[in-house]
Amino acid sequence: MIYIHYFDPELTTWQQRQVTQLTNELRLSAPLWLDLSEASSDEEQQVMQMLAIAPTIAEDFTRQRHPPKFEAQADFSLLILRGYADADFTEFTRSAQVNLLFSRDILISKVLCHEPQLAVLLKPQLSTGINNTVLEWVKQLTLTVSGSYLGKLLSFEDELSELEDHMLRNGDDELMASMMRYRSVLRKVNRNLAYQKDIFADAMYEVQHPLSGHFTNTDLRDFYEKFERLHSMTDMYYDQLSDLVHGYMSTTSHQINERMKVLTMVSTIFIPLTFLAGVYGMNFHNMPELSFANGYFITLVIMLFIGLGSLAWFKFKNWW
Amino acid sequence: MIYIHYFDPELTTWQQRQVTQLTNELRLSAPLWLDLSEASSDEEQQVMQMLAIAPTIAEDFTRQRHPPKFEAQADFSLLILRGYADADFTEFTRSAQVNLLFSRDILISKVLCHEPQLAVLLKPQLSTGINNTVLEWVKQLTLTVSGSYLGKLLSFEDELSELEDHMLRNGDDELMASMMRYRSVLRKVNRNLAYQKDIFADAMYEVQHPLSGHFTNTDLRDFYEKFERLHSMTDMYYDQLSDLVHGYMSTTSHQINERMKVLTMVSTIFIPLTFLAGVYGMNFHNMPELSFANGYFITLVIMLFIGLGSLAWFKFKNWW
Amino acid sequence: MIYIHYFDPELTTWQQRQVTQLTNELRLSAPLWLDLSEASSDEEQQVMQMLAIAPTIAEDFTRQRHPPKFEAQADFSLLILRGYADADFTEFTRSAQVNLLFSRDILISKVLCHEPQLAVLLKPQLSTGINNTVLEWVKQLTLTVSGSYLGKLLSFEDELSELEDHMLRNGDDELMASMMRYRSVLRKVNRNLAYQKDIFADAMYEVQHPLSGHFTNTDLRDFYEKFERLHSMTDMYYDQLSDLVHGYMSTTSHQINERMKVLTMVSTIFIPLTFLAGVYGMNFHNMPELSFANGYFITLVIMLFIGLGSLAWFKFKNWW
Amino acid sequence: MIYIHYFDPELTTWQQRQVTQLTNELRLSAPLWLDLSEASSDEEQQVMQMLAIAPTIAEDFTRQRHPPKFEAQADFSLLILRGYADADFTEFTRSAQVNLLFSRDILISKVLCHEPQLAVLLKPQLSTGINNTVLEWVKQLTLTVSGSYLGKLLSFEDELSELEDHMLRNGDDELMASMMRYRSVLRKVNRNLAYQKDIFADAMYEVQHPLSGHFTNTDLRDFYEKFERLHSMTDMYYDQLSDLVHGYMSTTSHQINERMKVLTMVSTIFIPLTFLAGVYGMNFHNMPELSFANGYFITLVIMLFIGLGSLAWFKFKNWW
Amino acid sequence: MIYIHYFDPELTTWQQRQVTQLTNELRLSAPLWLDLSEASSDEEQQVMQMLAIAPTIAEDFTRQRHPPKFEAQADFSLLILRGYADADFTEFTRSAQVNLLFSRDILISKVLCHEPQLAVLLKPQLSTGINNTVLEWVKQLTLTVSGSYLGKLLSFEDELSELEDHMLRNGDDELMASMMRYRSVLRKVNRNLAYQKDIFADAMYEVQHPLSGHFTNTDLRDFYEKFERLHSMTDMYYDQLSDLVHGYMSTTSHQINERMKVLTMVSTIFIPLTFLAGVYGMNFHNMPELSFANGYFITLVIMLFIGLGSLAWFKFKNWW
Ligand SMILES: [Mg+2]
Ligand SMILES: [Mg+2]
Ligand SMILES: [Mg+2]
Ligand SMILES: [Mg+2]
Ligand SMILES: [Mg+2]
Ligand SMILES: [Mg+2]
Ligand SMILES: [Mg+2]
Ligand SMILES: [Mg+2]
Ligand SMILES: [Mg+2]
Ligand SMILES: [Mg+2]
Ligand SMILES: [Mg+2]
Ligand SMILES: [Mg+2]
Ligand SMILES: [Mg+2]
Ligand SMILES: [Mg+2]
Ligand SMILES: [Mg+2]
Ligand SMILES: [Mg+2]
Ligand SMILES: [Mg+2]
Ligand SMILES: [Mg+2]
Ligand SMILES: [Mg+2]
Ligand SMILES: [Mg+2]
Ligand SMILES: [Mg+2]
Ligand SMILES: [Mg+2]
Ligand SMILES: [Mg+2]
Ligand SMILES: [Mg+2]
Ligand SMILES: [Mg+2]
Ligand SMILES: [Mg+2]
Ligand SMILES: [Mg+2]
Ligand SMILES: [Mg+2]
Ligand SMILES: [Mg+2]
Ligand SMILES: [Mg+2]
Ligand SMILES: [Mg+2]
Repeated sequence: MIYIHYFDPELTTWQQRQVTQLTNELRLSAPLWLDLSEASSDEEQQVMQMLAIAPTIAEDFTRQRHPPKFEAQADFSLLILRGYADADFTEFTRSAQVNLLFSRDILISKVLCHEPQLAVLLKPQLSTGINNTVLEWVKQLTLTVSGSYLGKLLSFEDELSELEDHMLRNGDDELMASMMRYRSVLRKVNRNLAYQKDIFADAMYEVQHPLSGHFTNTDLRDFYEKFERLHSMTDMYYDQLSDLVHGYMSTTSHQINERMKVLTMVSTIFIPLTFLAGVYGMNFHNMPELSFANGYFITLVIMLFIGLGSLAWFKFKNWW
Repeated sequence: MIYIHYFDPELTTWQQRQVTQLTNELRLSAPLWLDLSEASSDEEQQVMQMLAIAPTIAEDFTRQRHPPKFEAQADFSLLILRGYADADFTEFTRSAQVNLLFSRDILISKVLCHEPQLAVLLKPQLSTGINNTVLEWVKQLTLTVSGSYLGKLLSFEDELSELEDHMLRNGDDELMASMMRYRSVLRKVNRNLAYQKDIFADAMYEVQHPLSGHFTNTDLRDFYEKFERLHSMTDMYYDQLSDLVHGYMSTTSHQINERMKVLTMVSTIFIPLTFLAGVYGMNFHNMPELSFANGYFITLVIMLFIGLGSLAWFKFKNWW
Repeated sequence: MIYIHYFDPELTTWQQRQVTQLTNELRLSAPLWLDLSEASSDEEQQVMQMLAIAPTIAEDFTRQRHPPKFEAQADFSLLILRGYADADFTEFTRSAQVNLLFSRDILISKVLCHEPQLAVLLKPQLSTGINNTVLEWVKQLTLTVSGSYLGKLLSFEDELSELEDHMLRNGDDELMASMMRYRSVLRKVNRNLAYQKDIFADAMYEVQHPLSGHFTNTDLRDFYEKFERLHSMTDMYYDQLSDLVHGYMSTTSHQINERMKVLTMVSTIFIPLTFLAGVYGMNFHNMPELSFANGYFITLVIMLFIGLGSLAWFKFKNWW
Repeated sequence: MIYIHYFDPELTTWQQRQVTQLTNELRLSAPLWLDLSEASSDEEQQVMQMLAIAPTIAEDFTRQRHPPKFEAQADFSLLILRGYADADFTEFTRSAQVNLLFSRDILISKVLCHEPQLAVLLKPQLSTGINNTVLEWVKQLTLTVSGSYLGKLLSFEDELSELEDHMLRNGDDELMASMMRYRSVLRKVNRNLAYQKDIFADAMYEVQHPLSGHFTNTDLRDFYEKFERLHSMTDMYYDQLSDLVHGYMSTTSHQINERMKVLTMVSTIFIPLTFLAGVYGMNFHNMPELSFANGYFITLVIMLFIGLGSLAWFKFKNWW
Repeated sequence: MIYIHYFDPELTTWQQRQVTQLTNELRLSAPLWLDLSEASSDEEQQVMQMLAIAPTIAEDFTRQRHPPKFEAQADFSLLILRGYADADFTEFTRSAQVNLLFSRDILISKVLCHEPQLAVLLKPQLSTGINNTVLEWVKQLTLTVSGSYLGKLLSFEDELSELEDHMLRNGDDELMASMMRYRSVLRKVNRNLAYQKDIFADAMYEVQHPLSGHFTNTDLRDFYEKFERLHSMTDMYYDQLSDLVHGYMSTTSHQINERMKVLTMVSTIFIPLTFLAGVYGMNFHNMPELSFANGYFITLVIMLFIGLGSLAWFKFKNWW
């Protein structure tokens, strides 16, 4: 099904109306917002043909999953964005895919989002004070996409602080596994943000970029800075997690070393002594030492010397 | 043997015909597709000379193995591509090498592919609706090459997800070895994709690049984006595997540490006690303690104190 | 509350005066310094509206936490800087945020700093000899921000030298944990410095950058070099810490190996011997060897051979 | 001694003639090839002065060891290349240093190569069919230098494949050490290739580069691509070796962990039991338990419980 | 104290004369070399004011420690260089700081060097054959600075080769610690060289760079290449050391694994057997097995089976 979103000035709210037939008259009621999120493949084809969209662009627009990109052609521009649709960074299920195909008069959107709260925000929510134009709608959607990351990243910062404290005090396998999962999610998010950051960096720095015909420099810079900041944050969080993993390994190695030291010293001192005791615990009939008057005491002294000798050797070798 | 591929408008299928003699008249039947995949070295030389191909380009075209490149000279352009010819990423046997030498009228191809299914796709398969021109053929072959990676990469993504779950729960040497193999394959694939991505990035960004005379900007951008996406995917998968390797090492270190703790504590507590028991198990005739009325009980108490003392020391040292 | 800072030529000190009402006449008393550090959200809005500041810029200015940036628009320029407000690098609580919005006539500042000593420096402290202009104030504040890092970094260098000596001699968990904390702080600081370095690099290298209208090339170069040096220092310190972590792990591995060697040799030699002694310590009635005249001595010789054999095997295997 | 290389059109082979005196008439017999490989320091100085070579260039030319570089000055150009003179990558003794100082009429070469087979190739070997010019000689020498790497690198690829298989199955110290040696050699080779790649990249991309006056674009591109390919290959081989080292460490850690598990379980179960047996093996006169009728059996049952208890604890802790 | 260095044409040596008063007439005796190495802070201020040096530049010149930089302003250029003043790379005490402030007529130098041999070279040492101009002096000093690294780096290469051989055969903690120290020194040196390399790279590639007014392209290229080579060498040595550290860790892990294998096998085989022997060494009155005629032999057979069983298990598990 194809929907049309429109702002009803009387109710001062946004309404949506189902479209059963695509007529060229629709094009006259500018600005027009067509929502293909729930359209069938056929309906998509119809719209693409009616608006004479170039096949490469149409193909990208109708794909369920495409990395963020921007492409302009004749009247229409295609902007594909990806929002963060999970509650936090413990698991990455799927991005919210936001495909926008727009000219000055028409916006065709296709939003795929499994998180209801974000899905609502990606629907039209303009208040009366704001210009009711296609470009304003695109701007609001872009800001909603960048906003879908920020809150979660900021609250992840606290999570990370706590992780650091825990890991440095006493880490465990659970924490380790969750850190690995965070790293994996942040890597994927970082890649999505890199693409989006690059889109707006190009728009700012390239001469005569199509987007700079649509938005003011201030707006483009704002989009860029928002995605750049998100990208730089995921970069840093990822790196901090990596540092933690490395630091944890280093601490663990040190502890193994300490334990090894204790074990080796105790073993090296007592194992030979225990052997000696075992020798004089044998039941041979003819063991002359056993009947020596001081045999026991001499043995104890010998054991003492062996023990102290081992200790001295360890001290000499700087083991403690 | 040299083959000519041609589209038979009556049968509406592609046919191939063996060529026994190269005549200049062949050049007149434009567009012409010569297939040298099974040509002998001599036949290759003949074709190169007939078309007056520059020696450096001819040398690159006739090589069985050359990294992807593009070079233009006079009328002819050389495009060398590499497709992925294995079923998955467990082992990398050989790339599908696609050497294309083309002018506006003639396409000379040399395709080396050991995977039958891909080999078929790299043969002409144009349907009637499409322009029957040399550049269209080159475009279709390029898209087939990029397509030879995509499906396998997407299904590798699922494989990777499962690997992550397994490794974080309980990894083993088998998984580790297969991860190492994946990394090795992804590295090689990534290098091939980097070359191909760079070819089309140059074509898009350099002024007056020969390829931009052959293809529209939209097509070049499409080629570029396809290879860029593939490259970025292999990059990320490789990095995620590296993360897994590191995380696994970290987890393993932690487990060694835990085991070491148990071993050291048990050993440190019981080894000295066992020694003491060994001492009073010796068979010396003259061991006064043995005949003490409470000798045994005193020894047990001493043992208890030593044991508890060790435990207290471990507790004090924060071992658990 | 909004404050006005002004230089009293008679007292030759800086004074501050609370403003209760914002009138347009205020704009006439150039140069004017408005301090919004303690202003309420409403008062901020009022000032922004009175000076007709663009909404994107106003939003960035009024945020409590924004990465360093520079943006110019119409008359006003926004410069956001971050100083280092902690005593050293053991813990990173919060940056000193310095938001400056200035035209040639007016400076509006919003400084958030929890460290009293730095906070004082970020208040006006111009002496009579210096030009009393808005741009001079901005310059002094920028230098104060860069200065807030330098002393602490130089004294960290000594700290680092000592850390290196300690870790190479005998590291411990405490040192390791503090190194991890340093790394985490340096990473965050490095990111802040990277943003600030980039601001002034842009100002130096871009043609017609707004900042080059405000400051001389010499000043811009000085700002750039100061932040570049700080950035390069944190980079190097971070990397040196990483080297230490790696080197420590390597040393630790080596020590584990050495201990393992001792433990394995002692165990391998004595454990079989102790078993043999245990066998002849069994109390079976019928153990023929026990009554052999030389049973004991033969056993001792066998034990000697087993012991020497093990030693020879270790020697042969190059264990020491 | 200074040699002159010349092509004898009658014998159709290359000849060399010793020069005892440098006269200006020599310059007339263009093209002239002077070989200073075995010249004394004095003779070198003489040639430099006769041809009025600038001191900085003369200094670089006469050095036995200089990283690859290109520099043009007045009539003469200096090209320093480095070939690979060892049989394989197990050890890096010394590069083949190829110093070429050439104008359109004269080539002065100084080749230092300890590998006889390569040394022969670096001597003139032009066949009749090829232009007998200075630039052709330089081209052939450049191709010989790049060719000195390729065969060895391609055969190293197979070596690497085998190494991968071995390391993943069962690595040992020997393999590890040889991998370390390969890495060290590849790093040095990679640096030499980076310099040479950059020389020809500059020649291709800089406007009015002196080399583009000497060689066609096709030739320069060919030189560049050859060195770029070699560089990219050493890069990848080095990285693959690093991956192997990391993967091997990870596998080793896992095996240590497995062994630790077995050792700890066996020790933890039997060490306390052995202690208990030791206690009842003591020879105190007054040990009431010993005379209990069921003392032995009760002890065995207690031992069984302790053993099963330990096993249960390990099971509970998920140790196997 | 301020010194004037001058070349006495009669004695054909360099002399130095102390200056008590700075007069403007001094400026007339061009070329003039003022040495402020031992000047007081006041004297420095005097010179700066007399020559009207801009404050930012004066501040950088008079600092004891500033990273290498170049800055030009009006008549004067400031060049800060850092030479290597230690005997080798085992410890980095302090760089030789060479601050040069020069116009076409005057050179003001401030050299801080704790190594006497290098300090001598940094004093004027021109022979008669060379142009006695300010720019020639600056050139000689720059070459002395670059020369202060080269010899030490080349002799470090041999040191490194030996380190590699030692580490791969049998590393120890001493070597490890010294490698860590080398890495730390090389990192600091590398940073200094990066700054100096960049100074001359800018001078070569920027259009109308002030230094290209002072020196010929040949000289600038020579400076650049010298520092670039040094930088690239320290880069490679550092990386080779890192490779060694990693390789050593890998080798160590392998050895721990081998030792662990031996220890675990010996322990696993003998610990249960020793327990069994301990059981029959207990002194309970009622132990029926002890009086069995074949009890001892049956026990020995059981022990044999247990031992062989363990061995078989290890073999089955592929432990050796
Ligand atoms: Mg990951
Ligand atoms: Mg930003
Ligand atoms: Mg950034
Ligand atoms: Mg990244
Ligand atoms: Mg690391
Ligand atoms: Mg690999
Ligand atoms: Mg790569
Ligand atoms: Mg490449
Ligand atoms: Mg793409
Ligand atoms: Mg990318
Ligand atoms: Mg990447
Ligand atoms: Mg890593
Ligand atoms: Mg960190
Ligand atoms: Mg960062
Ligand atoms: Mg600087
Ligand atoms: Mg830096
Ligand atoms: Mg960084
Ligand atoms: Mg590393
Ligand atoms: Mg190396
Ligand atoms: Mg290098
Ligand atoms: Mg190439
Ligand atoms: Mg590569
Ligand atoms: Mg490299
Ligand atoms: Mg690594
Ligand atoms: Mg590592
Ligand atoms: Mg270091
Ligand atoms: Mg550095
Ligand atoms: Mg730098
Ligand atoms: Mg060089
Ligand atoms: Mg380089
Ligand atoms: Mg570096």
